[in-house]
Amino acid sequence: MTTPATGLHEDGSPERLAIDTIRTLSMDAVQKANSGHPGTPMALAPVGHTLWSQFLRYDPDRPDWPNRDRFVLSVGHASMLLYSLLHLAGVKEINADGEYSGDPAVSLDDIKGFRQLSSKTPGHPEYRYTTGVETTTGPLGQGCGNSVGMAIAERHLAAHFNKDDMVLFDHDVYSLCGDGDMMEGVTAEAASLAGHMKLSNLCWIYDSNQISIEGGTDLAFTEDVAARFRAYGWKTLHVSDANDTVALADAFQTFRDTHDAPTLIVVDSVIGWGSPKAGSEKAHGEPLGADAIKATKKAYGWPEDKDFYVPEGVAEHFAQSMIDRSRPLRESWDMTFATYREKSPELAAELERMRQGELPDGWAADLPVFEADAKGVASRDAGGKVLNAIAKRVPSLMGGAADLSPSTKTDLKFDGAGSFTAATPGGRNMHFGVREHAMGSIANGMALSYLRSYTGTFLVFADYMRAPIRLAAIMEVPTIFVFTHDSIGVGEDGPTHQPVEHLATLRAIPGLVTIRPGDANETAQAWSVALKQADRPSALIFSRQALPTLDRDKYASAEGLQKGAYILAEAGGGDPDVILIGTGSEVSLVVDAYEKLRAEGVRARVVSMPSWELFENQDAEYRDAIFPPAVRARVAVEQAGSMGWDRYVGHDGATITMSTFGASAPLAKLQEKYGFTIDNVVKVAHEVMQGNGK
Amino acid sequence: MTTPATGLHEDGSPERLAIDTIRTLSMDAVQKANSGHPGTPMALAPVGHTLWSQFLRYDPDRPDWPNRDRFVLSVGHASMLLYSLLHLAGVKEINADGEYSGDPAVSLDDIKGFRQLSSKTPGHPEYRYTTGVETTTGPLGQGCGNSVGMAIAERHLAAHFNKDDMVLFDHDVYSLCGDGDMMEGVTAEAASLAGHMKLSNLCWIYDSNQISIEGGTDLAFTEDVAARFRAYGWKTLHVSDANDTVALADAFQTFRDTHDAPTLIVVDSVIGWGSPKAGSEKAHGEPLGADAIKATKKAYGWPEDKDFYVPEGVAEHFAQSMIDRSRPLRESWDMTFATYREKSPELAAELERMRQGELPDGWAADLPVFEADAKGVASRDAGGKVLNAIAKRVPSLMGGAADLSPSTKTDLKFDGAGSFTAATPGGRNMHFGVREHAMGSIANGMALSYLRSYTGTFLVFADYMRAPIRLAAIMEVPTIFVFTHDSIGVGEDGPTHQPVEHLATLRAIPGLVTIRPGDANETAQAWSVALKQADRPSALIFSRQALPTLDRDKYASAEGLQKGAYILAEAGGGDPDVILIGTGSEVSLVVDAYEKLRAEGVRARVVSMPSWELFENQDAEYRDAIFPPAVRARVAVEQAGSMGWDRYVGHDGATITMSTFGASAPLAKLQEKYGFTIDNVVKVAHEVMQGNGK
Repeated sequence: MTTPATGLHEDGSPERLAIDTIRTLSMDAVQKANSGHPGTPMALAPVGHTLWSQFLRYDPDRPDWPNRDRFVLSVGHASMLLYSLLHLAGVKEINADGEYSGDPAVSLDDIKGFRQLSSKTPGHPEYRYTTGVETTTGPLGQGCGNSVGMAIAERHLAAHFNKDDMVLFDHDVYSLCGDGDMMEGVTAEAASLAGHMKLSNLCWIYDSNQISIEGGTDLAFTEDVAARFRAYGWKTLHVSDANDTVALADAFQTFRDTHDAPTLIVVDSVIGWGSPKAGSEKAHGEPLGADAIKATKKAYGWPEDKDFYVPEGVAEHFAQSMIDRSRPLRESWDMTFATYREKSPELAAELERMRQGELPDGWAADLPVFEADAKGVASRDAGGKVLNAIAKRVPSLMGGAADLSPSTKTDLKFDGAGSFTAATPGGRNMHFGVREHAMGSIANGMALSYLRSYTGTFLVFADYMRAPIRLAAIMEVPTIFVFTHDSIGVGEDGPTHQPVEHLATLRAIPGLVTIRPGDANETAQAWSVALKQADRPSALIFSRQALPTLDRDKYASAEGLQKGAYILAEAGGGDPDVILIGTGSEVSLVVDAYEKLRAEGVRARVVSMPSWELFENQDAEYRDAIFPPAVRARVAVEQAGSMGWDRYVGHDGATITMSTFGASAPLAKLQEKYGFTIDNVVKVAHEVMQGNGK
Repeated sequence: MTTPATGLHEDGSPERLAIDTIRTLSMDAVQKANSGHPGTPMALAPVGHTLWSQFLRYDPDRPDWPNRDRFVLSVGHASMLLYSLLHLAGVKEINADGEYSGDPAVSLDDIKGFRQLSSKTPGHPEYRYTTGVETTTGPLGQGCGNSVGMAIAERHLAAHFNKDDMVLFDHDVYSLCGDGDMMEGVTAEAASLAGHMKLSNLCWIYDSNQISIEGGTDLAFTEDVAARFRAYGWKTLHVSDANDTVALADAFQTFRDTHDAPTLIVVDSVIGWGSPKAGSEKAHGEPLGADAIKATKKAYGWPEDKDFYVPEGVAEHFAQSMIDRSRPLRESWDMTFATYREKSPELAAELERMRQGELPDGWAADLPVFEADAKGVASRDAGGKVLNAIAKRVPSLMGGAADLSPSTKTDLKFDGAGSFTAATPGGRNMHFGVREHAMGSIANGMALSYLRSYTGTFLVFADYMRAPIRLAAIMEVPTIFVFTHDSIGVGEDGPTHQPVEHLATLRAIPGLVTIRPGDANETAQAWSVALKQADRPSALIFSRQALPTLDRDKYASAEGLQKGAYILAEAGGGDPDVILIGTGSEVSLVVDAYEKLRAEGVRARVVSMPSWELFENQDAEYRDAIFPPAVRARVAVEQAGSMGWDRYVGHDGATITMSTFGASAPLAKLQEKYGFTIDNVVKVAHEVMQGNGK
């Protein structure tokens, strides 16, 4: 390992200057913010510099070039490494309107404003917030999963779009990972799948620094990581000194030359390199302190009293190295695409739409309409039909299940859909295996690469993949999460498989559109709404059991779903006596209760309320029309926990919901046990009308 | 592979009869229930039989013998395998009062009632519900994680209790795992940690049947599992035919003879063995059908028309094999323990308490009392002090963090606490590594083995470990989940690290006691409440930032926390004009607002509401005393999402909460941005008093 004592700048090379500029900017920014993580940027500056200046195909003027190599900073806490690279590379901003503003993506002032309100340099890198940030990272393992999704997307886009000598996609995906990433299960899942899929366009650089927050990695992490990855089918390389930029370059070149497996480069590094705290967990998550910074700068041969110092020519040299290599590639791509547009105008238009997040004309033309049917169809089955009808017309719609597609009905069955495999990357059915967490994270990576990705599993297993659902919402990417088997309707599988709290936990995520349609026609609307989202993820909640298909001549149109809640039926003649609210499988139950109440002369209203989020997006007038403030006799019926329903039923209403976990038994027995019967809904309706809701 | 055509019963051995009894009971039960998973019990009957009849140290009359070997069915969907084994072994029931009822744990009638309401044979095995079920399984990977926790517990209990020649603990832990388990990240995390800890008392049997629900495992899962486990530090063995009971016995013996690593036995099996659907995913999750069952029974040489047939002598022979081997061991243990009780009465009493889930006298004697202090202390820091004060007196309290103990303050710092390692299993500080999911699952396994286990990580990472939190609640085990960094109080780390929805998502889990204390003295109460739970898990929610320690002479005692919500301060003189509700870090904010309102002459009340669950456990009189139904001007203040607060503030109240994700900035800036200021609370209080809450 090169030591600071040898004097980094004896050779005065621009490379060393740039590397130490990254290091000192990182130290200074963390010190000024009085919070952050200096140690990893200091350790990995040579890695970032070598990769960006010698390998990454990335035109700083066109950070949205579709065929750019992707750089994912899975160690999101090392954000100053990325901000420093973006700054030195002179990456240009794309503003909120999607235009090239001409401003830098990250200016020196932005770096000085590290971790301050409204700065472009938040504590962890945030997608959409800072140009050049390919994905939001920080929660460990997520960047790794995202990078697998991006690599899958590249393979798929290449298979779909590349024509003869017109290659639109052949980029690589790099992810910088740490010990924490390597310990997380989501990373293990994603790596196993990447190996299975032979994603040779994927390179993970594992920063092996022997340090974790509690102390040395020997406290908890002594496995042979490289051997593990070889078991997954990866090629593994080892660089024994993170400062050895020649060895790093060799490793990256070997990756580029490898065409049958993803590559893991294990890089031994020293956290906080060159500082008095080097090699210690104390260099990880707090400012080094003024004295240590001075000592470190001295060790680097750096002016000790200059903060945020970027020596003259360093940025220019670095940027030029990227431009020299990448601009011709990007310009050549532009020319290729111009030809492509002439020769394959439809595909070219498709790619443009995908880049803009737009849907093709007529995408909903085959949306099925379901005839009224008392026996009906499970919304998972209806969902499968609708998905297939849309997917046939939306080529970017691509996804699959965590080994549950026969149950979730999320497979694309039409000719040409095929399965995505190493040999058939043009296939659109993903087989994620029993890996829910990675599935979510991979789907986000796909969504970040122009695909409309969807996932499928049982609702109860949403618990396994909450982190990526949350991150989709933070990133404002429209990943579609399909969850079936949505309640005690699961029946005999019992409480471990019966979601109770999961609807509430999804509704609690800001920006996630959760929709639980009540019958097959609402299911068609639900998919339709999800597809139309450009900047919000959706969770589509489907039943295992058959739901009656409502007679839409008798009741209101399912298009009401688009507003989140709508009046499905009512006796009319002024404000109702009572409002019955249902979602999903309970809509038909509530309709049956309504009919009974109506026969009794009660002026009841049925509100189908498939989506709280969509409803909250409506104006107050609409909301008050659905739930007139004066009508406080309200009953919400949902085979799930009551959390949140008080918002709609208030202190004077009631809920018929689950207050415990369920049980293993046929559904009818459970419905009786927990009160999901017509008689009980009618009884509770009478109670709230008499002012005895609670 | 032995084929059915050779005629299993030509040798007429009791072993083969027992194995086929397990298979046919499983087929018949699934058929009668018209739901369930026959294929895996059929494949693994020889594995279960060999293990139980030849190796498992388990006295059927004493299923609560502390030193019994543990058998975990991680493939919980194969529940009929376990029920069949429990039935044939004649395991005796321990009833709800903890007494030996004399009844079988699982009778033949129970098997006939498979998956029916209130039967002892639910779809997936449920702890506390069926004697002999060591843990609730079904959600894949959880059993694997639990088994690691049980193996850790054995090591720790052995180190703590074994004396010279008096060995109280030397049992093993077996877990039966499937392809699904092996694909799940939680399993990977747990296996890595088990290898690190050299848990040679742990044996996983991996049912490698080449089949997943979507089809062959070659769809998504082609890694070299054994090589991966060797990379983790495990010993791996291979049995190429699940029907080869001699090879299975050899493998189990090799495990018993291995003392430096956990063992993975890869067993190649055929799902639905012997049936027309053998080797197909169609044998996995649905009844075989009457015709296939007949054909299978014929292939087994079984009476085709007999359902639930247990040939004479089969159960007796199987039970006797277990009794012959295990009863002397158990009786010898009883004698050892009698001697132990004489020689080490205090330790013996401690073990008895742990078995009963009781706390030692004086466990709370050192509970700190914190003096009023405007600057105060972060509740994570106070929590660390309280934890240490309790842990010194409660030897069974054992846990740690997912590589965050310097931040979560969950480490035990007193002399003798030490770290749990392979070399020092008597240590009590767990180093889980960055493995939140496995941490939760392992902690549950420890809780199932007499330990009062706790975990620690940031609240935002509760998302990574929801499945085990939920399972702790389903199982009614009192695992304590500590979550710190509980709001936008995280500040500069930004939205990826700022929980917004997580309080709601924890409160939504039935049976979980979520507590967010408002200052150091409430923190002491919170830990105290968590310790006192015998059958509910707790989530303790602590702040990163300092919270003022309230003057309890001026305001009400923190003991009010035990009721979930209490009146901290009020102007008096009848019902208040407005009720201000706060939790955690917002309690002092609300108190400040109260003081300002009071100065204005407003009769305000402050309710500190650290735990909704505890509050809902109070009677209506108490609840109405805290929130008088007539007082509808209410303001809830919490630096988190509003989900669920309407229950307490109603249609006429208001919430000051987060409706979006947070941002990266110093906390004071965020509080200003999102309205968590004294002035805003006062303003909103006036609005609700004027009837303009919403």
